[in-house]
Parts: sequence; structure tokens; C-alpha cells
Amino acid sequence: MQSFVDVSGGVAAANGFKASGVEAGIKYAGRKDVALIVSDTPANVAAVYTTNRVAAAPVHLDRERTASGKAQAILANSGCANACTGEQGMRDARESARFTGELLGIDESLVLVCSTGVIGMLMPLDRLEAGARSAASALSREGGADAARAIMTTDTCPKEVAVQFTLDGRTVTLGGMSKGAGMIEPNMATMLAFLTTDAAVSPNALDAALRKAVAVSFNSLVVDGDRSTNDTLIVMANGAAGNREVVEGTPDFEVFAGAVRHVCVELAKKMAKDGEGASKFVTVRVNGAVTDEDAAMAARAIAKSPLVKTSWAGMDPNWGRVIAAAGYSGAAVDDRRAQIFYDDVCAYDAGRVADAQTLAAMKEKMRKPEFDVTVDLHLGTGAAVVYTCDLTHGYITINADYTT
Amino acid sequence: MQSFVDVSGGVAAANGFKASGVEAGIKYAGRKDVALIVSDTPANVAAVYTTNRVAAAPVHLDRERTASGKAQAILANSGCANACTGEQGMRDARESARFTGELLGIDESLVLVCSTGVIGMLMPLDRLEAGARSAASALSREGGADAARAIMTTDTCPKEVAVQFTLDGRTVTLGGMSKGAGMIEPNMATMLAFLTTDAAVSPNALDAALRKAVAVSFNSLVVDGDRSTNDTLIVMANGAAGNREVVEGTPDFEVFAGAVRHVCVELAKKMAKDGEGASKFVTVRVNGAVTDEDAAMAARAIAKSPLVKTSWAGMDPNWGRVIAAAGYSGAAVDDRRAQIFYDDVCAYDAGRVADAQTLAAMKEKMRKPEFDVTVDLHLGTGAAVVYTCDLTHGYITINADYTT
Repeated sequence: MQSFVDVSGGVAAANGFKASGVEAGIKYAGRKDVALIVSDTPANVAAVYTTNRVAAAPVHLDRERTASGKAQAILANSGCANACTGEQGMRDARESARFTGELLGIDESLVLVCSTGVIGMLMPLDRLEAGARSAASALSREGGADAARAIMTTDTCPKEVAVQFTLDGRTVTLGGMSKGAGMIEPNMATMLAFLTTDAAVSPNALDAALRKAVAVSFNSLVVDGDRSTNDTLIVMANGAAGNREVVEGTPDFEVFAGAVRHVCVELAKKMAKDGEGASKFVTVRVNGAVTDEDAAMAARAIAKSPLVKTSWAGMDPNWGRVIAAAGYSGAAVDDRRAQIFYDDVCAYDAGRVADAQTLAAMKEKMRKPEFDVTVDLHLGTGAAVVYTCDLTHGYITINADYTT
Repeated sequence: MQSFVDVSGGVAAANGFKASGVEAGIKYAGRKDVALIVSDTPANVAAVYTTNRVAAAPVHLDRERTASGKAQAILANSGCANACTGEQGMRDARESARFTGELLGIDESLVLVCSTGVIGMLMPLDRLEAGARSAASALSREGGADAARAIMTTDTCPKEVAVQFTLDGRTVTLGGMSKGAGMIEPNMATMLAFLTTDAAVSPNALDAALRKAVAVSFNSLVVDGDRSTNDTLIVMANGAAGNREVVEGTPDFEVFAGAVRHVCVELAKKMAKDGEGASKFVTVRVNGAVTDEDAAMAARAIAKSPLVKTSWAGMDPNWGRVIAAAGYSGAAVDDRRAQIFYDDVCAYDAGRVADAQTLAAMKEKMRKPEFDVTVDLHLGTGAAVVYTCDLTHGYITINADYTT
């Protein structure tokens, strides 16, 4: 098992990448809201987009462009989603790629644009262009932190990860950043996530590594069960490390895919911990399901259940809500065989009801900011893990006021 | 179209039925928690139960018994769900039916038992038996209101409906009551609902009328998207009105089915209005979908979305969350064709974004305690209606503390 050494620098940690984050006043004054990530040379690219049938203009544009397997720059803003904006929205997305390419002196078809923010607002293109201009002049190897801050919306903290590992005898770096705290559920969230690496990786291998990683990271993440119009995950690999190009079906691919998985899982955990209003980070594990799909259905139902999530917020050892959610998830569940654990405390054992002492022990576990809830269905070998958080007054406050 | 005349009396409004509700201290002192409904004679019965794979002991018992098409009494308690209680739970359910039959002097196989409350708690059988005894001695034609109160959990008000109409030249009465304010979603909720009628109705016709009514009432109701282990809806028809027995495929059946539908829809609306912490009652209509199923998927996704529900709580005209939820529902959605209305105000029109004046008009509509949100997808003729409520701090307070 290859080990990964944590390094700083986030999305600009890898050689041949620069980043920046600036204030452009897209929607609010006094906060960074435009991020730029640029590779010195055209990079191989892979991406995963929202499954929402209503996709924002930049998602439509990027889907076309990443299909080519090549990209060099990403311009992201966190003020305006540019979703449900019709033809004008598409024109605005193309225009923002055009002026970014011009500012950087690169082919505009190599520029990707990403948006997050309020749906149904037209992009203030003059402000975005001014932002892109100052972002271009601020680009640096140390700009990852600014970029991570510039893509935040209701996030309370920037989310960055970067690791180094060895590939083909070379030290390679893989870094990334993400945003997203609400509208989060499996199959992508209101999230933007960008990964960069100096490894040389073929477009197919890059795509395969990304899809494998998504399943166990961003698609295993639940905050509130909403899925946005703008979700975008992009990885760029520019080959600056000088390794032999990674292709599928090789030991190098396994190492590289493991690194992508690691970075994606770490970013996903940071997002669950920063879930809107969250006071608890909970890892839901379902084991012993008939199939992995059943396990995933049960784990997601538990993680999405408002009743389960509020019980966590109240530190109420109400395991009945956990088994009820598993029961309606669609997964095969037999309450005469299932077990439920809060960390290592067995809350329910195949018809045996928790006693007062057990409930007290569970409460103790729930006082911690992080705990695991494990359901063993004892029906097979299917397993799944979902990262999630509780549902608190903070979520209501944030979302009853976040605004049009 | 037959008209229905509202009458009082709830679940005991129909001739030949009595009801009562008493304090038995099953879980809390000082509140009614045991309800009894009895027909003077064995009645035809039909029922619909939770789709949750984890079903409570009384659900297992009642499923067996209502399959016979005959029942005479229902004993319900609102303190203990008797779910996930293993073999002991089944024994307790059978025993409570046995002593109720003995108290009433009727065949114990004609007694149904229903529970709602905390999962994973064993039934305090001595208290339930004492409750059944005092409920039996309190039975009366005026007992509907007490019974409706005795099945409440987090409900803030009892929910009763009764109507009279003409069938075969006779005046017949159909009454009902229900409970449920949280753990509510299509495909049944944490709800108990009981209907009684003095109409003579064949078991098949009773079942058919109930299933038709459920689809557009209780299965079109969303509070939080959780589904319980105990959901039960039972209708008893004792024939005391003396009409010719209603059978399927007749005009009488259409009249009777219409009455069942009316009562179920009215009860469902009362439940949505009393949703835990609810400050707004919202009717979500989706029209113009490719199929009715697509319309239902979109309407449910909108009604379940925490982001949509919190926007209603905050009276924020954030229609973007509505279209985003439709977009991830699985239904076919094309944002270049869809329209969204808040009451009669068009919030979004096929790519045209709401202006400030429109947003202000929407806010005005949202100030009301009840409003409609209508999505016209302009893709076909599929339609669906869902009754729901907003998501407020009240929901969090109730569910972070409701307790094991």
C-alpha cells in the first residue's frame, strides 16, 4: 500500500499549476468570489457533473469541452449559479471562457468555467471579467488557499488537500479543493471540486480514476439530500512530474487511483463536517446487506432522514429512527436479524431492545463531535459507507434566509 | 357530483359505532393515550399498511386479521410503537387483542390493535389492559373526539372528519380520524387513520375504494420524508344504514369511493397543516409532465427538499430550489420549457428570470399561511398534487428532543 504524504498548497501544490482567488463583487461585497486555476501547459482532463436534469449553463459548456480530454484553466465564481438563465446564460458562459483565454493568452477552448450561487440570476459579466483580470494577475504557486476561499458559499472554512507520492520513481503531487455545505447528497452535491496533479496520466486513466474515487467520496456524502444544478468535479493532469504516462491496468494506475480516492474522500469528509449548521460528523456504515447497492440505499436513507439527523443533534439515542430509515430505504431488512451500533455500543440486537444503561452509553458516544453509526443487517456481504452530519437549528437559519 | 354534508362525531358519527379515548399512562402521565372504536356488529373491513420493511408487531397482526375481511373493534395506543420488539412484541400484540375481545364480549379475532410512539420499547401490558378496560366502559356515540385526541403524539390538534351522503335512497355516514405530524411521506406516514361507515359495502368494494383514496390523500402527503414502522389505515363498514350492499362497478360504488376519497383528502390536509413545526401549508402541483408518475416524482421531490421547505419558512421566493428539486427527482424536466408559479404569480417562464417586482409579488403570496406552488413542465399531460408544509426551527426543536 502506497502511503501519501500530506503537503500544503492545495489546488496549486502540483508542479506547473498556479491559482488565485479575488474579490469581484459578483453578488456580495467584501469577499473573494472568483477563483482561477491555470496549468502552465495544456493538461489532460476528466470531469464528473451533476445528474440533475436542470444543469447550469457552465455545466453544459464544460461537458462539451472536457469531452476533448484537454484543458488548461478553470474560472470559477461563487456568486451566481448561471442556472435557468436560458440562451443568455449560455452566451455568458462562453463569453467568460473567451475573455479568460484572452487574458491568459491561451486557446479559449481550453478554458472551463464553473459557477455556484443563486439559481435564476443573470451573470454580471462586467464584474466577472474584471474579477478574471485581477485573478489572472494574482496567479501564483501559493494561490491555492485564496482560490479555495473564493469558491466558498455557505461553507464556514476552505477545504484543501494535497499529497505527494511516488510514481515511476518520480515524486508526484496531487492537490485539490472543494466547496459545498448544503444541497449535498449522493450523486454530487452543490459542490465544486478541482484536483490538479503533475503526474502524466492518460485521459482514459484519469477518467477511470476519478469515477472510482467519486463513488466512495463525493457520492457517499449527504448533508440534506438536495442535488444542485451546478455540481462539477474536474481533475487536470499536466505531466510536469515527468513520469511515464499512467494508463489503466497497470500498477501505476492503482497507485494513482488510490491517491485520487484519498484526496476525494478527505475533501468529502471536510464537506460533511462543514455541513450547514452541522454540530456532529457522522459516518454511517451498513454491513451485511444482500448487495452493495442495498447497503448504499440503506446508508443513504439513514443519512438523509430528518428524524435520524435531528436525533443526532439532540444527542438522543433513538436508534429506532435508524432502523426505520433502513426499513423504508428499499433495501432488504429483517429486524429480527439486524444489529445497530453507535461506535462500539450495541443499541439493538435482533429483537433485543436497548436497556437504560445501554442508552446512557450511547448518549456518551453521541456527545463527541464525531461518531459512527453502524448497521449490520446479517443478510449477506454488501457494505457501504456514507459521510454525513446532523440537522440543527443552524441549517434552518442558514436556509430560511439564504436569498434571492 | 354527489355532495357531502359535513357532520360532527368523527369516527363514531356513523350509526352502530361507538368510541372512547382514555388516559392509561403508557408513556406519559396526564394525557389520553388509549383509543377504542367498536362496531355494534361485525363489520366489513379493509386496510392499508406501512411499506416499511421493518413493520411493528401490531401491523403484522392486523395484516393477518384484516385479510379475513371482517373486524369489529380497534384498540389503539399512542405511547409505545411496539416495533423492533421481537417475539415478545408479537405476544403482547396478540394478548392485547385477546383481553380487548374479552372486555367487549366479542371474538378476539375481530379485534385489531394499533400502536404509535417510540420504537424499541416493550409494551407495558398491564397499563394497556387497564386502559382498555376504562375505554370499554367509556364507549359512546359521542366518544369520537376523545378517541381522536387519544391517538395524538406530536400532533398539536385532533383530526376528525365526518360526512353524510345518500346511497340507495338512504342517508349514510362516513367518519374518520387520523394522527401524524412527523415521519410523514408518501406511501404512508407515521400515521394512524381509522374510518367507519354505516353503509353496507362488500369487502372488495371497501378495499378498492380505500386504495383509490389513499393514492390521492395520504400517499400525496409529505412532512419530512420519513416513513414509519406503524402506519395503518383501516376502514370498517357495518351496514347499519340498511342500503343495498355497495359492490364495485356500480354508480353506488362511485359515490361511496368519492366519499372515502373526500374524507381521506381532508384528513391528509389536516395532517400537512399540523406538520411538526409547520408554519405554512403548501399544495404542490406538477402539471405537464410526460406521465403521472413523473409528475408525482417531481412533486414529491419538491415537497421533500429541505432547501425548498426552508425557503418557504423564510418566505424567500427562491424558485430556483423548486426547479432544482424537480430536476433531480428522476422526472423528465427541460428548464427551457418549464414554468413555475407561486399561486398565480409566474416565477419562472422557460428561461425568463423573475424580476424584482415579481419576486416582491411572490413574497406577498408567501406571507399567507397557505399557498400553492405549481410547476408546469410543458412536456405532456401528467399531473400530480402533493400536500406538504415548510421546515422550521420548530421541527428541529420537536425532533431533537422527542425521546427514547
